[in-house]
Amino acid sequence: MTLEGTQLIGRETVLATGEAFHAIDPSTGETLQPAFPTGGQAEVERASELARAAFDSYRETGLEARARFLETIADKIEGIGDELIERAMAESGLPRARLESERGRTCGQLRLFAKVVRDGEWLDVRIDPALPERQPMPRVDLRQRHVALGPVAVFGASNFPLAFSVAGGDTASALAAGCPVVVKGHPAHPGTSELVGRAVQAAVAECQLPEGVFSLLQGAGNEIGQALVTNPSIKAVGFTGSRAGGTALARLAQNRPEPIPVYAEMSSINPVFLLPEALEARGEALAEGFVGSLNMGAGQFCTNPGLMIGIQGEALDAFLATAAKAVEASGTQTMLTPGIRDAYDRGVAALASSDKAREVARGQSSDAPNQCQTGLFVTKAKDFLADETLQAEVFGATSLVVSCADQDEVKRVAEHLEGQLTATLQMDDADVDFARDLLPTLERRAGRVMVNGWPTGVEVCHAMVHGGPYPATSDSRTTSVGSAAIHRFLRPVCYQNLPQALLPEALRDGNPHGVSRLVDGQREH
Amino acid sequence: MTLEGTQLIGRETVLATGEAFHAIDPSTGETLQPAFPTGGQAEVERASELARAAFDSYRETGLEARARFLETIADKIEGIGDELIERAMAESGLPRARLESERGRTCGQLRLFAKVVRDGEWLDVRIDPALPERQPMPRVDLRQRHVALGPVAVFGASNFPLAFSVAGGDTASALAAGCPVVVKGHPAHPGTSELVGRAVQAAVAECQLPEGVFSLLQGAGNEIGQALVTNPSIKAVGFTGSRAGGTALARLAQNRPEPIPVYAEMSSINPVFLLPEALEARGEALAEGFVGSLNMGAGQFCTNPGLMIGIQGEALDAFLATAAKAVEASGTQTMLTPGIRDAYDRGVAALASSDKAREVARGQSSDAPNQCQTGLFVTKAKDFLADETLQAEVFGATSLVVSCADQDEVKRVAEHLEGQLTATLQMDDADVDFARDLLPTLERRAGRVMVNGWPTGVEVCHAMVHGGPYPATSDSRTTSVGSAAIHRFLRPVCYQNLPQALLPEALRDGNPHGVSRLVDGQREH
Repeated sequence: MTLEGTQLIGRETVLATGEAFHAIDPSTGETLQPAFPTGGQAEVERASELARAAFDSYRETGLEARARFLETIADKIEGIGDELIERAMAESGLPRARLESERGRTCGQLRLFAKVVRDGEWLDVRIDPALPERQPMPRVDLRQRHVALGPVAVFGASNFPLAFSVAGGDTASALAAGCPVVVKGHPAHPGTSELVGRAVQAAVAECQLPEGVFSLLQGAGNEIGQALVTNPSIKAVGFTGSRAGGTALARLAQNRPEPIPVYAEMSSINPVFLLPEALEARGEALAEGFVGSLNMGAGQFCTNPGLMIGIQGEALDAFLATAAKAVEASGTQTMLTPGIRDAYDRGVAALASSDKAREVARGQSSDAPNQCQTGLFVTKAKDFLADETLQAEVFGATSLVVSCADQDEVKRVAEHLEGQLTATLQMDDADVDFARDLLPTLERRAGRVMVNGWPTGVEVCHAMVHGGPYPATSDSRTTSVGSAAIHRFLRPVCYQNLPQALLPEALRDGNPHGVSRLVDGQREH
Repeated sequence: MTLEGTQLIGRETVLATGEAFHAIDPSTGETLQPAFPTGGQAEVERASELARAAFDSYRETGLEARARFLETIADKIEGIGDELIERAMAESGLPRARLESERGRTCGQLRLFAKVVRDGEWLDVRIDPALPERQPMPRVDLRQRHVALGPVAVFGASNFPLAFSVAGGDTASALAAGCPVVVKGHPAHPGTSELVGRAVQAAVAECQLPEGVFSLLQGAGNEIGQALVTNPSIKAVGFTGSRAGGTALARLAQNRPEPIPVYAEMSSINPVFLLPEALEARGEALAEGFVGSLNMGAGQFCTNPGLMIGIQGEALDAFLATAAKAVEASGTQTMLTPGIRDAYDRGVAALASSDKAREVARGQSSDAPNQCQTGLFVTKAKDFLADETLQAEVFGATSLVVSCADQDEVKRVAEHLEGQLTATLQMDDADVDFARDLLPTLERRAGRVMVNGWPTGVEVCHAMVHGGPYPATSDSRTTSVGSAAIHRFLRPVCYQNLPQALLPEALRDGNPHGVSRLVDGQREH
C-alpha cells in the first residue's frame, strides 16, 4: 500500500492544506516520506458531521453486526502484513518483537470487545413490570437499557503506536459501545496511523456501515485536537498522553456550552513498596527484576516503576548496590521521538540538580540519536514529603528510590502520593501485617494493586483496571484497558409504558436477544 | 424533640457562630424558631476531616452491617413521628398527604438500597484466574471489585424536603456505596433537616459506626457549599437545584487541584409531544391530564411538563381551549420559598413580555403570601427555534405550547431541545410511525422516554433513570433516583496476585459473600 499522507474522512481520502509534517525515524533521525499536510477546522467539521449523521444508525446495529465489524477491523489490520510492522518500527524505534506482540494485543482486544458486545451485559437491561393493582398508586412499566453517548474523539498515544492508537483500546471500546469515532492520530507515527486507518475504513465499507462511523485526522500542533473537543457533535473524549495535555483537554471539554466527559490517562509513577522481609530475603533478585521492568520499552510505559520505597538499612543498601550495577550495565535504547527524549533529559537533569535527590547510577551512554540513558536516584523520605516536584513523572527509564526511617514513614509516603495507575507490594509471608496496614491507602491511591510483580505488563481482560485517581487519569470511575472500558461510552435511558413495537428489541417481552436482565430486582439469564 | 439550631458534626452538636437565619412558613410569611447560626470554614473542615477519618473503616463494613445501617436510618426517621411532618409542612407549605407520602418514599429508598447492598451486584466482581501455562506469556491472577470514592458532599434540595434532602436519594446511595456523607442542608427547611439529621446521627451511633460517617452543616449563603466542594477530603458531590448553582459547583470541582465528579440534577422542561391522532381523538382528556400534571406540587417538580409540542390546527386549538379553561379554574398554591416565588414571577413576566410568546390563560390569583398563579403560553415553532430563552425553565406551574406547521417542524423542535430529564409522547396506534421517527432524537435528548403518561411521578426502582444530558444534569451517565444511583459513588480497583489473606473478602476463592461474579468472562451466581 502506498502511503498518501491524507486525512481519512468517512469513505474519502482528503489531502489537507495545512503545513505538512513528516515522521522521523528516531533511531537514525532520518525524515520519512510521505509528507502529511496538517488537517484543520474544515476537516474536523466534516468528520464530526459525518459521525453525527452516522450515530443514530450505528448505535442501533444489532449485537452480531457490531461484533462482526470489530472482528473485521482485526482481520483487516492483520491483513496489512509486515508493511505495518516495518512502518511502525521506523516511526517509533521500537523493536519488531514488541510491535508484533502489540499488533496481537490490538487485534485481540478488538475481538474481546466483539465477545463483550455479543454477550450484551453492557446493555444493563433492567425491567420493572407494571403493577396496576399496587396501592396506594399503581406502578407503570419501566425498562432501562444503556445507549451510546455519541461520537467520540480519540487521541492516539505515542508510546503504543498500535494498541493505544488509531484502532487501540479507546477506539475499540467506543465502537463497541455504539459510538462513531474520530481519531486524531499521533504525529509521531502518521504512516502507521494511515495504514491502520485504511484498515478500519475498509471494514466500515465491507460491513456496510454508514461512512461516518470512522474518520482519521492527522496533523502537527493542537488545532485539530482543540477543534474536535469543542465540536458540538463530539460527546466524549479518549486520550492517553501527558498530564498537561490531558488536563488541558478536560478543561476545554468542561467549558463547552455542553460539557462532555474526558477519559484522559495521564501520569503515574507507579510506586513499588519493598517490604522489610522481602528486601532482606531477596533484595538482589528484586533489584534485578526492578531494573528489568524499568528498562522495558526504554521506560516508556504508563506503568513504568518510577518510585521505589524501602526502609533504610543494610538490606536497602544492598538492593541499591545491585540495582546500581544493573543500571550501569544497561545499554541505551531509542526513545519514541526527539521531543520525548528532550523531556526525558530535562526530567533527569532536574533530579540531578535537586539538592534533595542523589544520583546512584546512570546507564551506558551513546552518541546515536534519541537514546535513553537509564538513571537511578535516591532521596530521603523527609525530603520526598517536603517537595512535590519529586513526584513528577520522568517519562523514560529513570526511577527514584525513597529511603524511609521506619514503617510509619513508609505509610506517610504512601499517604502523600498522588493518584496512580498501579501500586506494588514486594513482600514475603512475614510482611503480611505491614502489607495489610498499607492496603487501604494503596486502594485509595491506585487503580491496580499488585503483589510480587512489576507494574509493566497490562493484561487485556475483564478484571483489569488501567485507571486510577487524578492525575493518573481524569476519571477514576473507569478503566481504559479491558472489557469494562466499554462503560465509559454509555448512558442509561429509561422507557416508560412504551408499546412493544416501539421498545428497543433488547427490552421487549420474551428477551429476543437473550441478554441478562434485572427483572423486578431479580437477575434473569 | 426541641430543635436547637445546631450543626451536627459527627456525634457532636455544635452551635456555629455565623450570622443566624430562620425558616419561614411560606403560607403565612411567619418566621419560625429557632435561629440557625450559619456554619463556616471551621465546621466544614471538622466534618470533612471526620469523614476522611471514617472512610477506610466505613467502606469496609460488611454488606449486612451496611444494609442494617440504612434500615436503621429509615426506622429512626419514622420514629420521629408527626413532628417531622408538621415541621416540614410549616417550612415548605406542602400539604400533609404529600409529605407523608414523601416520607414513605424516603424510607422506602433507604430500604431499597439496603437490599441492593446485600445483593452485592454493585461490587461488579470480576475474576480472571492465573493461566501459568499460557503461551507466549503466562497470565497473572487478576480480580476486580468496586470501592467507594470517598467522602461525598450532598446538597439538600428545596422541593423535596425529605426525599431529596438530608437522608434523600443522594445520601442513601452514597452511604450504600460506602461513602461517608457531609450534607449541606437547604436553608428553606433547617428544622426538618435537623430532625432528619439527628435520626441519621442516632443510627450511626446505634450501629457503632465511626462518627464521621455523617455530618449535617447548615447555613445561609454559599460559603459552606464552596468550602465543602473544594475541601480535599471530599471526593464527589451530589446536588439537586438550579442550573446556575449546579454549573457553578461543577466548575469549582473541576478547578480543584484534584478534580472530582459532580452529580448535579439541574434543569429540565420535560417536553410532551402531542401526536396528531392522539390529539384528534382525545385532546380534551389530554388537556385535563396536562394541567393536572402542571399544577402538581405548584409545578415545583424537576419533571414538571414545561413544554407541549403539537401541530397547528383545529385539534390543537381545541386542546388549548380546554387547557385554558382548566388553567383559569386552577387555584393558587403556596410555593416553597419567597425566593422561588420571585423567580417564578420573573420567569412568567419574561414570557408575558416576549414578543414571541402569547399568554393563553392564567390561573386564579390570591393575595395570600407566596402563591403560584398557574400560567399557559403559546409560541410558534419558528419563534421557538430562533430564541434560546424560550427553553429556559420556569420553575413552577407555567408551561409553553409550541405550535408547529407540520411533522418536520416537530422533528426540528425535538432536535433543537437541550438535554432533558424526560420526554413524553402522547400517541395513539396510528401515530406509531411518527413516534418511531421521533424516538432516536428523544433518546439522545432525555434520560426517560414515556408514552401516554405525564412526567411528574418518578418511581424509585431499578429501571428508573432520573438523569439526562446537560443541562438536565451535569453527568448523563447515571441517575439520581433508583438503585442504579449507587454506581455514581464507586470506582473499580484491580488486585493482582494478592494472597488470599490480603484479598478483600468478596474476591476470595469460594465466594464467601455469595455475590455474582464474572469469572474468565463467564457469569457465575
